[in-house]
Amino acid sequence: MLLYDSAVSGNCYKVRLLLAKLGISYERRELSVVDRSNRSEILGALNPALRVPVLVFDDGRTLAESNAIISYLAEGTEYLPSDRFERAKVLQWLFFEQYDLEPTIAVVRFWVAFAENPPPLAEIEARREAGHRALAAVNRGLGDRPFLVGDRFSIADIALYAYIHVAPEGGFELGGYPSIGAWLERVAAQPGHVKIDA
Amino acid sequence: MLLYDSAVSGNCYKVRLLLAKLGISYERRELSVVDRSNRSEILGALNPALRVPVLVFDDGRTLAESNAIISYLAEGTEYLPSDRFERAKVLQWLFFEQYDLEPTIAVVRFWVAFAENPPPLAEIEARREAGHRALAAVNRGLGDRPFLVGDRFSIADIALYAYIHVAPEGGFELGGYPSIGAWLERVAAQPGHVKIDA
Repeated sequence: MLLYDSAVSGNCYKVRLLLAKLGISYERRELSVVDRSNRSEILGALNPALRVPVLVFDDGRTLAESNAIISYLAEGTEYLPSDRFERAKVLQWLFFEQYDLEPTIAVVRFWVAFAENPPPLAEIEARREAGHRALAAVNRGLGDRPFLVGDRFSIADIALYAYIHVAPEGGFELGGYPSIGAWLERVAAQPGHVKIDA
Repeated sequence: MLLYDSAVSGNCYKVRLLLAKLGISYERRELSVVDRSNRSEILGALNPALRVPVLVFDDGRTLAESNAIISYLAEGTEYLPSDRFERAKVLQWLFFEQYDLEPTIAVVRFWVAFAENPPPLAEIEARREAGHRALAAVNRGLGDRPFLVGDRFSIADIALYAYIHVAPEGGFELGGYPSIGAWLERVAAQPGHVKIDA
């Protein structure tokens, strides 16, 4: 199994974290998220969206979109609920993550910490405000429950942990989200945890 | 079953189209996508993201995020492949749709056709360019195949049809995407099809 990957990418980290917990070995092939000039050449035939992560199976089949990859890998494991409705709530969180959280938190982090030519400060601040709205929604959704779905750890937690735990790199203060703070520690304490820079 | 809905919303239309094909009756409760002032009051307890569609089951449980809703409803039906990998490819298209297609095609359509205060033309044009990149990816992904996954109609087609078929309302010319044109007709010819304005 081969993973087209970027070490700093939260989307790729979701896949790496789940593969570590599942004890599945794989080869990592690093692509830059700053210099994207070779994306078409390397990923053109593998992922029409030209993005990492892309998983290539031994038989040559490919799978892209981080949340589709972790959904596939988690099926039949303890990381995806067996209850049909709970699985739907996991998907609800995964789609929320890619629509509200990643385009705000991850993009601001990229602009602040990695981009060679970030946009004007006003644009970054507007995006950061949207990120805070997403964090508030997560904080509300968690409430006083230990995990996001069904009171047990799942790929919903993996998917949201990926960028939320590095949100401070984008200038997000998480102190105003008490449920999130406790949950971040709880996720990092789960068996088989690996860090994003592992 | 109750659907918090907006008639013009492609995201809501995905749910309405699948429910029609499944022959499931439900009550529609309309919310405006222009005047969003009552969102917190009406949806606050139902969907932390304060968006439609939201499906409320008879037992009071709720499900949000259009692609999570159609994934749930399609399970065990002909609209979701039984093969594990094909289901993952469906999810790949669903996540692509919400990350690359909806934030471009649907948002430009909203700005052009519905918004009271659209942003400057330069911003609309930039977003339209991104929409064309997404359409090009869909055109490549379709190739000469009849449907997006497994050569049979699935919720992947429903999810992408929702906004692509009304993209011209946002000023997108689809003539440069021959695979898409044939596919749009093929989707609309499927049994149980209903239109967005039904």
